Amino acid sequence: MTEHPDLAGLQRRLAEFAAARNWQPYHTPKNLVAALSVEASELVEIFQWLTPQESARVMDDPGTAHRVTDEVADVLAYLLQLCEVLGIDPLTALSAKIDRNEHRFPAPGPDDTP
Amino acid sequence: MTEHPDLAGLQRRLAEFAAARNWQPYHTPKNLVAALSVEASELVEIFQWLTPQESARVMDDPGTAHRVTDEVADVLAYLLQLCEVLGIDPLTALSAKIDRNEHRFPAPGPDDTP
Amino acid sequence: MTEHPDLAGLQRRLAEFAAARNWQPYHTPKNLVAALSVEASELVEIFQWLTPQESARVMDDPGTAHRVTDEVADVLAYLLQLCEVLGIDPLTALSAKIDRNEHRFPAPGPDDTP
Amino acid sequence: MTEHPDLAGLQRRLAEFAAARNWQPYHTPKNLVAALSVEASELVEIFQWLTPQESARVMDDPGTAHRVTDEVADVLAYLLQLCEVLGIDPLTALSAKIDRNEHRFPAPGPDDTP
Repeated sequence: MTEHPDLAGLQRRLAEFAAARNWQPYHTPKNLVAALSVEASELVEIFQWLTPQESARVMDDPGTAHRVTDEVADVLAYLLQLCEVLGIDPLTALSAKIDRNEHRFPAPGPDDTP
Repeated sequence: MTEHPDLAGLQRRLAEFAAARNWQPYHTPKNLVAALSVEASELVEIFQWLTPQESARVMDDPGTAHRVTDEVADVLAYLLQLCEVLGIDPLTALSAKIDRNEHRFPAPGPDDTP
Repeated sequence: MTEHPDLAGLQRRLAEFAAARNWQPYHTPKNLVAALSVEASELVEIFQWLTPQESARVMDDPGTAHRVTDEVADVLAYLLQLCEVLGIDPLTALSAKIDRNEHRFPAPGPDDTP
Repeated sequence: MTEHPDLAGLQRRLAEFAAARNWQPYHTPKNLVAALSVEASELVEIFQWLTPQESARVMDDPGTAHRVTDEVADVLAYLLQLCEVLGIDPLTALSAKIDRNEHRFPAPGPDDTP
């Protein structure tokens, strides 16, 4: 039985993958953020001429759904590799950010409804 | 005791955060990929004039370290929100991608060393 | 009387500006393309949550109009500085590209109308 | 004899090209800035794994030189199309920006040399 993959395990697989191919010299933080932004733009490219409504139905076409899923994986892969070389824990970073945003943008309470 | 945050829990917190502020109409896939690419570029901005060597020491300065960590959180936040609206499991997507890459780029074996 | 600025003159002013501040060591092609993409993303940031209709009215607000114009200038500045260090003539490059596109995407003729 | 192309003439050719293909509905400012950022990222992709030294020699290889020149043309094409739909004069915008930068970053004078 295959278990659901976890983030730390995937980060380790990516590190081993790069090490086995001697790619670490290329994986400077500067290069990894460039690669991350390129992959994010490949996601944008899929959506660039779509209306908001068309963009919401992008998973209905199996070919496009596969392409989007693949680019999501690429973005996550470079983000995890960046975190690996910089020693950042992405889950702790995001948790702290959500905490800060809850203070910056307080949710409207029941008394705020008209 | 605070547990280590997990990806699914953070994705849920982000969805509740957006819903409480009625931000869902803005969170079309097209807008979320644009926001994701903007956050990735804010990471690039930190590194754009650095040498490869300087980029490797970016976490030595506490102010820059905080800024990088914050942008990593922003990229992950938009990636998880995109996955939420499109119904993509990012960990399964990445696991499948690593599987494919292991076939595309076979690691050199011990016999390949000169 | 001020004449309308021309592209070659602006490219020269940018080169002199960088030289007077000893910025050339930073202006590697790799760094300039990163800076160009960061400026392009700052344009995207202005538009990321707008509807297509709102995006068409972005120049109606003087503050936003100024911000958009300023980012357009930044993109053009880095593009010209990239062309300077690489020895590319941007106008000849674009003219050749339009020629190629006219072959790749032939315009529908009068007989194509239903 | 072919004259050197000028920016205004190229902007007009691009507008006629889009009109002849009925592409104007796709050319919202929001979509054009997305396309501009995607093309800028395609330039980044060429340079992402290069050292600063390698990036400075990118025009030595005819295939890479052609690819870089082509992407420069694409960035300029979308920038001009964006200026067209927004009514921005890119040369005046850049000239004004250089004026402002000359005030923000005064050049060191001869007396500043040690």
